[in-house]
Amino acid sequence: MPTNRQILLDNRPQGEATLANFKLVSTETPALQDGQVLVRHHYLSLDPYMRGRMNDAKSYAACQPLGQVFQGGTVGEVVESRHPRFAVGDKVVGYGGWQEYSVVDANQPGMLKKVDTTRVPLSHYLGAVGMPGVTAWYGLNKIIAPKAGQTLTVTAASGAVGSAFGALARARGCRVVGIAGGPDKCRYVTDELGFDACIDYRQHGDVKSMSAALKAECPDGIDGHFENVGGYILDAVLLRTNAFARIALCGMIAGYDGQPLPMANPALLLINRIRLEGFIVSEHMDVWPEALAELGQLVGSGKLRPRESIAQGIESAPQAFLGLLKGKNFGKQLVKMV
Amino acid sequence: MPTNRQILLDNRPQGEATLANFKLVSTETPALQDGQVLVRHHYLSLDPYMRGRMNDAKSYAACQPLGQVFQGGTVGEVVESRHPRFAVGDKVVGYGGWQEYSVVDANQPGMLKKVDTTRVPLSHYLGAVGMPGVTAWYGLNKIIAPKAGQTLTVTAASGAVGSAFGALARARGCRVVGIAGGPDKCRYVTDELGFDACIDYRQHGDVKSMSAALKAECPDGIDGHFENVGGYILDAVLLRTNAFARIALCGMIAGYDGQPLPMANPALLLINRIRLEGFIVSEHMDVWPEALAELGQLVGSGKLRPRESIAQGIESAPQAFLGLLKGKNFGKQLVKMV
Repeated sequence: MPTNRQILLDNRPQGEATLANFKLVSTETPALQDGQVLVRHHYLSLDPYMRGRMNDAKSYAACQPLGQVFQGGTVGEVVESRHPRFAVGDKVVGYGGWQEYSVVDANQPGMLKKVDTTRVPLSHYLGAVGMPGVTAWYGLNKIIAPKAGQTLTVTAASGAVGSAFGALARARGCRVVGIAGGPDKCRYVTDELGFDACIDYRQHGDVKSMSAALKAECPDGIDGHFENVGGYILDAVLLRTNAFARIALCGMIAGYDGQPLPMANPALLLINRIRLEGFIVSEHMDVWPEALAELGQLVGSGKLRPRESIAQGIESAPQAFLGLLKGKNFGKQLVKMV
Repeated sequence: MPTNRQILLDNRPQGEATLANFKLVSTETPALQDGQVLVRHHYLSLDPYMRGRMNDAKSYAACQPLGQVFQGGTVGEVVESRHPRFAVGDKVVGYGGWQEYSVVDANQPGMLKKVDTTRVPLSHYLGAVGMPGVTAWYGLNKIIAPKAGQTLTVTAASGAVGSAFGALARARGCRVVGIAGGPDKCRYVTDELGFDACIDYRQHGDVKSMSAALKAECPDGIDGHFENVGGYILDAVLLRTNAFARIALCGMIAGYDGQPLPMANPALLLINRIRLEGFIVSEHMDVWPEALAELGQLVGSGKLRPRESIAQGIESAPQAFLGLLKGKNFGKQLVKMV
């Protein structure tokens, strides 16, 4: 059996997460039992929600146990199978965690899914045609539920969720304004993803400046907002919302590493009769088939061109993850191992 | 024609509202034209939303024009009529403003409504069986939509909205915990209104203490919350919410008079997948008949025993209103003129 390098959560962060929270170990993969499949991971998915799992505190993502393989989505290839529905060579998406191989009990529903890589590259099943894409789909369709012609905004617009949100919203005839960090990301958001505009938050570092930029790009106000970041950007968005605006609250990455970030003026939620809803997409599995079908078409037709930041080798996962928390990635952050 | 004393908004508050913002004047009521009715006001309604209207800034309540009669709900008696559907002696509810008499164009739909005072005292049509009661009804049924056995909380529990909320929630089989200021109000909330418990916020003046009190009274967590106040009490409620809790955001009176009050940790909305919705009941006129029918039954049957604070005479309206903003009222704040 092959040697399997793994990243464990060794200890919990005090404030900011650091490399010292993780530990690299090597083990042997065990012999398969009936019903099991050995998957060699090609890519690990790195996602902001993982930061919440590192804490002991109550979080929407269950707590990551100490001393165990760091959990997360994976895509790979079946290299050995003792299950009739999986054959060596099958490409699969699963939840194998930060390791090079995983042994999967394939009888458990939802643990492993075969995917077709003829039109969609394997890695995209961790991004645009995976959990992040469905996250964008759910927030857009089930919470914001916009009408054609309305104006929508999204933070972290160049990321895996934001980019999918933009493509889906454009397909519904909305004006979509992204918010991202730096000119390269903003150019990608408008030129490759087809957003109507993108605001560089590095040029608008306080609520007043961001609010003015939003006013310029959203002359008819904001009807719906998809939030990945929180903090002063959300405060500025609230100042530009129209009556009955809806906010899908998906992430607040700006506050993940330290003290909670306040919302400056929640009375705006009342003044503008806003509906705000927090959600986690894994609690809405019923929408996944419909969402994945649409996302697969958008990627297959080239209307959604996901960008990826790829770190090499399992040992690079912690550093790449810390970079993701600081917005150093460009598009979906992955770790490539094959 | 009788002399009509009126309170005008003379100038807008700079920060806290004061008596100097108002002005008392006397005018003659004009002769009626066809279709008009002269109403002598018995009671004026004083409501927290009026504070928002005093500002020039955008608010959910439209701005109160300077130099004009301060707008608000009224109940009274028809003393002269040139409209076939209204006769002298009819008891009516309307929106006559802070004055002793109003001339109403009774052909305009919704301007004047006859009410039956055989089972419900006239003043309650400004409270439990009026706008505040319907406000509670809407938030409970259309936003929180609780199941029997769930735990709900409400701030300003002894007030016109909070007391109706409690009675309605009890009728749906929920555990209801109120939050109010001082032992007298808390005793009324539990002993007369039938709430399961009431927390005195004066005994719990910070988020930690309030959160501990909520934990004690809501051992199964909070499934739904009706917010009239905002500030640290809302912060404490958020710490005790269950997954998928719903928050009806009706008022944030704690911040009406000065700087916006922040929400300390909005990430809790995400962590607990909360749906929060701001609303104003006048935008949901479709629910009023159903809501008023239920509220009338609750009052008629004695299950909802509204309390009233009554100021005497039109000239007392500004002072009583400023007291309302500071929680000096006990139950619905009215001004009695007949």
